[in-house]
Parts: sequence; C-alpha cells; structure tokens
Amino acid sequence: MARIVLQLEYEGTAYQGWQLQAGDRTVQYVVEQALAQICGHPVRLHGSGRTDAGVHARGLHAHFDTHRPRPLKAYREGVNALLPPDIVVRQVWQVPQTFHARFDARGKWYRYRLLLSSHRSPLLSRYSWQVAASLDVAAMRQAAALLEGRHDFAAFRSSSCVARTTEREIFSLILTEQAPELLIDVRGSGFLKNMVRILVGTLVDVGRGRLTPEQVGTILAGLNRQLAGRTAPPQGLCLMEVWYEKTALDGEMS
Amino acid sequence: MARIVLQLEYEGTAYQGWQLQAGDRTVQYVVEQALAQICGHPVRLHGSGRTDAGVHARGLHAHFDTHRPRPLKAYREGVNALLPPDIVVRQVWQVPQTFHARFDARGKWYRYRLLLSSHRSPLLSRYSWQVAASLDVAAMRQAAALLEGRHDFAAFRSSSCVARTTEREIFSLILTEQAPELLIDVRGSGFLKNMVRILVGTLVDVGRGRLTPEQVGTILAGLNRQLAGRTAPPQGLCLMEVWYEKTALDGEMS
Repeated sequence: MARIVLQLEYEGTAYQGWQLQAGDRTVQYVVEQALAQICGHPVRLHGSGRTDAGVHARGLHAHFDTHRPRPLKAYREGVNALLPPDIVVRQVWQVPQTFHARFDARGKWYRYRLLLSSHRSPLLSRYSWQVAASLDVAAMRQAAALLEGRHDFAAFRSSSCVARTTEREIFSLILTEQAPELLIDVRGSGFLKNMVRILVGTLVDVGRGRLTPEQVGTILAGLNRQLAGRTAPPQGLCLMEVWYEKTALDGEMS
Repeated sequence: MARIVLQLEYEGTAYQGWQLQAGDRTVQYVVEQALAQICGHPVRLHGSGRTDAGVHARGLHAHFDTHRPRPLKAYREGVNALLPPDIVVRQVWQVPQTFHARFDARGKWYRYRLLLSSHRSPLLSRYSWQVAASLDVAAMRQAAALLEGRHDFAAFRSSSCVARTTEREIFSLILTEQAPELLIDVRGSGFLKNMVRILVGTLVDVGRGRLTPEQVGTILAGLNRQLAGRTAPPQGLCLMEVWYEKTALDGEMS
C-alpha cells in the first residue's frame, strides 16, 4: 500500500466547494474520478480542509492510498490530462502511512482580495469582492491587530459550524494596498467554517466606519456570531498554502 | 448632436475580438446593442483600435454620436446594467465633434503576461501564456532594447495586416519578473496587426536560446515576417491604456 499526497490548484467558480456531497459537482469528486482512472480502483481523497462553494485554492493538499502504486508522475501528468482546465495537480509526493493531510497540517495561508472601485471589473471580478466605498485602511489595520494571536473565535464562525473547539491562533493578519485592490492575508493554525470570510466582512465594516476597531475587540470577546459582520462573498477568497512539518513531505516527489 | 467617449474594460475570452464582423459575437457588437437601447436609436462605435479574438482590454476608448443626448451617467450605469459581466463601461466623457478615438490616440500600453511554470495554472491561465522553459531574461532584455525606438516593423505584423505604413515607435519595452509571471509591458505610438504578439513570440524564442538578441536586430532590419518568431497566443495580451492629448478629454465626465 502506498500513500500519495497531491497539491491541487483550482478555480472554484464552477464547483460546490471541495467536499464530496451527493448530487453536487465538487472538486473532491472530480479529482477522485480522475484518480480512479489512473489507479484502476476507486479512490478516497482526504483533504487538508474544506473550501466553500466558489472559493479558490492555489495550494490544497490531499492524500489517498493505492494498492497498485504507479510512477509518481502518473499522478501529476496522467491525472492532469484527465482533469478539466479549472483544476490542476501541481505537485505529488509519496509519504509514510502515518502522514495525514488534515491532522498533520500546521498552518494555512488564506488571501482575500477586495476590489476598491465604483465599477465592476471584468478582469478582476472572478477573484475579488468589489467594495465601492473608500475604506479607512488604518482603522482596519488596528482591528486586524486585535484579532491576531490565540483567541476563541466563536463569534467568527458560521452558525452551521460543527467544530468542537473554537480556539484558534491567527499568526498574522496583514493588509496590503495594491491599487485598485486591497489584499488581506490571514495566516493561522486552523480556521472555523466561514471564519476568514466573516473576519473580512467585519474588517470591511470597520473600513466603512460602521464599526470601530474597539468594537471588534468587544465582538471577539462576546463569542456571539450575531455581533460580527456579514460573511464576505466566496469569490474573493483563495487558500494559498498549507504547511506541514519540514520532514513530513520529505520523500520522493514529482 | 453630442459626441460621447466610453472607456471600456472587457475579458476577451468569449469574444471574436473588438471589431464588428457579420455573424460573430464581438465586443463592439455587444456594446452597440446596449447603447442602442439606452439611446433609442442605432449606434455606431469608433474604437481607438482593434483587439484580436481572445485579447483583453483594461481600457479601450470608443466614441459615438447621438442626437438625443442623455445625462452622462446613463451611458455608464444604464449601459452597464445591460452589458454582460465580462464587459464594463469604466468612464464616460462628452467631447467636441472634432474628437476621434482612433485618430486622436497618441499612444497605447499593452501588457503581455507569461506564466513561467511546468504546470498549467487554473488561476492564471485565462490571462497568461504558460511557457514551461526557464527563460534567459537578460537576453530577452537585450533584444527588447533593440526594438525600442522608431523602426519599420514590417517583420512584426500579420501577413493579413493591411496598414499602408509600417513605421511605428515603441516608447518602451519593459520586462518585469513577478514570479511565477514575467510581465512584458510595451508602450508605443501605435501597433500593426498582431505586432505585440509577434514581438512577444520572438522575445520568448530569445529567452529559450533559439535566437540571439543580435538576430532580433537582423530580423527587424530584414522586414520579413517569416524571420520573426511565432505569434504568441491571445489570452496573455491586454490593452491596458490609450492616451490622448491632455485637453482632449477635458469636458464633462461621469
């Protein structure tokens, strides 16, 4: 038996998210179908986490097991030949059976792109949320600083989130102005359902002057989803990278 | 009679280029149809130039005349409400009857995006040309320097180009490494049919070591299309901006 890890990139526009769901076209489903053809047997993928419908990924890791191992490049070049243009396998590793794409993940980097413009942009709208108002970026940075660190993020998760614990660590929450865009880069140990999108929606409320940075501190302490801002739309969000222990992906790669 | 100028942005993926052509879905056709609804009469647009099928534009100017002028914002907000998501009116001006979007253009800026990667990228492939090889960017810059200035660019135009004169001026041809992309920004007085894409194809040949920078000088002097490189694919190209005399667009705007 061999355990194989894939790093996947995809444009989420046409998918109902990562996770397998009966009746829906999801990224996991489409990749499993392609892998099954290459492996010659059904394949179950285990992703580093889920992405919501319409969210993109530049680097999502997922592992699977096969009892008929093939040269690693078959899982890259062979699978890519079968995948649609909006999904690609970037890299492949063979790892020990002890590796788990989800449980061994040490951190994730998400990027959210805001388009600060009064008109929609055909060249950016697939990958950003258009916010017409001019935003107070200094106030947003003050609020972002309050959210960094280890906290109970119960106020920043979807009401349908089933995680048992709600404490997470945000390593950094950085805003970069790159006109006409404002990039929000969030790096952390792990994230609750919709957490990044609710963080972004709340920061945009601060940028618009609807909330003060201090009120964001109060919302965080209140642990109540009702107090936080709206959930920012999915197409602005991209899972950029997932980190593992240095040695975890040390084996053969393609 | 009022003369109105629009600045348009579009993603060219779904269009047979800018120019009206019987039977084809072109950007000009789609915008003219929307304008006709707002104006209440047929409209003929005059663009600053053409873009090929699949080429994008961040800023293409076009003018039209109407004998029933409406408030300028009708040509922006009203027309945008009728346009598909991949086309938008960014800005609108009212100008004197002497203004002409094509004849008054003083220069244009095109950007070509190369993706330097061994695998395709679902998040970048709509807007770039994937070139797997590692390129010798220093050699490409040497070749680019030879192409700047006023020259006869007969070697760098499509065999179907019907322009009467082939002398043009390239103000600057700048290569910027922005991993995993290499951006090629060309600014010039005007461009022959396919000229930017043939320049890019030739520079990529230099980057791959198939041509030396000196040979590019010889190709330019040879005035023969057969000697230059291949025409780079359209999706990497974007018309970024068109310039006019400072005073040309001085009037009322929306």
